[in-house]
Amino acid sequence: MPSPTVASLGEIGLIERLKPYCAVGALGDDAVLMQLSPGRSLVVTTDVLVEDVHFSDRTTPPRSVGWRSAAANLSDLAAMGAAPLGITVGLALPPETPWDWVADLYQGMQDCLEQYGGAIYGGDVCRADQKTVSITALGQVDPQRVIYRHVAQPGQAIVVTGWHGAARAGLALLLEEIAADGVSDPVRQAWIATHQRPRPRFDAVDLLQQMDLTWPIAGMDSSDGLANAVMQICRRSGVGAQIMRSRLPIPPHLSDCVGPELALDWTLQGGEDFELVLCLPPGAAQAFVKRLGGEAAIVGSVTSVTDILLVETEADSHGQPLDSKGFQHF
Amino acid sequence: MPSPTVASLGEIGLIERLKPYCAVGALGDDAVLMQLSPGRSLVVTTDVLVEDVHFSDRTTPPRSVGWRSAAANLSDLAAMGAAPLGITVGLALPPETPWDWVADLYQGMQDCLEQYGGAIYGGDVCRADQKTVSITALGQVDPQRVIYRHVAQPGQAIVVTGWHGAARAGLALLLEEIAADGVSDPVRQAWIATHQRPRPRFDAVDLLQQMDLTWPIAGMDSSDGLANAVMQICRRSGVGAQIMRSRLPIPPHLSDCVGPELALDWTLQGGEDFELVLCLPPGAAQAFVKRLGGEAAIVGSVTSVTDILLVETEADSHGQPLDSKGFQHF
Repeated sequence: MPSPTVASLGEIGLIERLKPYCAVGALGDDAVLMQLSPGRSLVVTTDVLVEDVHFSDRTTPPRSVGWRSAAANLSDLAAMGAAPLGITVGLALPPETPWDWVADLYQGMQDCLEQYGGAIYGGDVCRADQKTVSITALGQVDPQRVIYRHVAQPGQAIVVTGWHGAARAGLALLLEEIAADGVSDPVRQAWIATHQRPRPRFDAVDLLQQMDLTWPIAGMDSSDGLANAVMQICRRSGVGAQIMRSRLPIPPHLSDCVGPELALDWTLQGGEDFELVLCLPPGAAQAFVKRLGGEAAIVGSVTSVTDILLVETEADSHGQPLDSKGFQHF
Repeated sequence: MPSPTVASLGEIGLIERLKPYCAVGALGDDAVLMQLSPGRSLVVTTDVLVEDVHFSDRTTPPRSVGWRSAAANLSDLAAMGAAPLGITVGLALPPETPWDWVADLYQGMQDCLEQYGGAIYGGDVCRADQKTVSITALGQVDPQRVIYRHVAQPGQAIVVTGWHGAARAGLALLLEEIAADGVSDPVRQAWIATHQRPRPRFDAVDLLQQMDLTWPIAGMDSSDGLANAVMQICRRSGVGAQIMRSRLPIPPHLSDCVGPELALDWTLQGGEDFELVLCLPPGAAQAFVKRLGGEAAIVGSVTSVTDILLVETEADSHGQPLDSKGFQHF
């Protein structure tokens, strides 16, 4: 039987079908109540994802759109050092959208929240010409243990979790920009998974909370690219950085597959890996990398000179200015 | 000089220009921190407004779109008995949107928040084919003093704040569905203001908090119409209601202007007046109406029989079933 459209269900019918995906009572009143733990501050972030701008049926099935939408927002919470409480979802849909698409979207969001914590606390649905998913994520944080962009200090090491460029490589595979036969099956699947089902790094946040560190810590997530994250932190902190080319977390096999130049570009500028970029005292940085089981690397250091340079060795103080293409959504 | 478009400003330029409208520090990190008062629960609500579905340049200048978007969300907080903390704004815009439109939108939201409390805590901007404004409002409430839909009890009086139908009449004037010369200038302006700049009823919420009442109280806002609010409360509480036709808050002059039948329809079904519908013990209801200075009326009572009837007199137990057209956004 073909899936009914959202127009045939009507707004009330659609909301009824969405209830099982939401926290109990989430759609019963004008708003929903949530409880913070004592002494915690609320952390809030909003992202809007638009079809054919941020996602497309061509590269991402709706369940993965749901996961990615939730994960991108949760990653912003992780980037502040917060733990997730939940999300609200504002959904604008063309009337001919099949119910199955909506169900898969919500299932994907629920999958992600089940893994990392939190629930869907209702939202809104309405008609539009283009699918738009607007998510607000809510988290809580000990106000003494927040990660901010503006508190980096010269002499600190710059630590990056995970590989960078894998999400971009996964997208390239899905768009057939690069040939799938250039890489082994497991590698291909890992890159595509990084694009479709990114993992917000709450494990790294938990580890930071457990370590004996001086707070606040400087950092942010790398959703708009590794270079962009370094630049944002430096600008907001009034510092500079030296990034060592040889230490960059280029995913294994990427240089072989697309050549060293494009691999470097995707690692620095690819974006959407949703990893963390942190500034820590050198000793703490080493301990952090070790305790995260190698899923992190020290890629450079914070400098008092405000240039941001890509250098060949630690002693090299010239290097090449690192620019960030960032993402311009207009 | 013509206004630059959002495409010519770029995402970064646009965000720079939005900063003055936002809470200090709201756009500097991946997310924003907010502080709840001790012992308060968080209240969250999300609304999506789409151009040509919820608003149109024809009837509503962007500054009023901003006010209405904020007010509609704040009204959902008031409907829960909460006080506003602030909003986040997810904005999807066609690239050719003039900056002036965006500035007016934010100015309107800021106007509303200045009046009722709270600030803009950042958000997101991105490209889309159609203007979409997604607002999440955050509030706080004493968890012992929440207004819910499901706690109405037979014997309670149904109290409604303000006039109903004025927002619909204002829209009709703007759409030229009705002739402007049928009403005096002040009346016309009042109806249009109700449509363009509705007032969330935090004054009524404050009054409820000051009165010696048994909590929780049943109620909701009348954003989808007075009849819809009565029906939602009754359904969720497993009760019915008798609404007295003669007590309905039909705006002065509306019957003269559009005839008694349409006036009744707009009062019951018009929607977007953003008033409150509350269920209170009869004595408390009378005190509430008196203390609100006549800006409220007892329109009927909660019954154990689950029918919802529009009756002529209190003694009339037959009446006419009240149906709610509600709003179906698909």
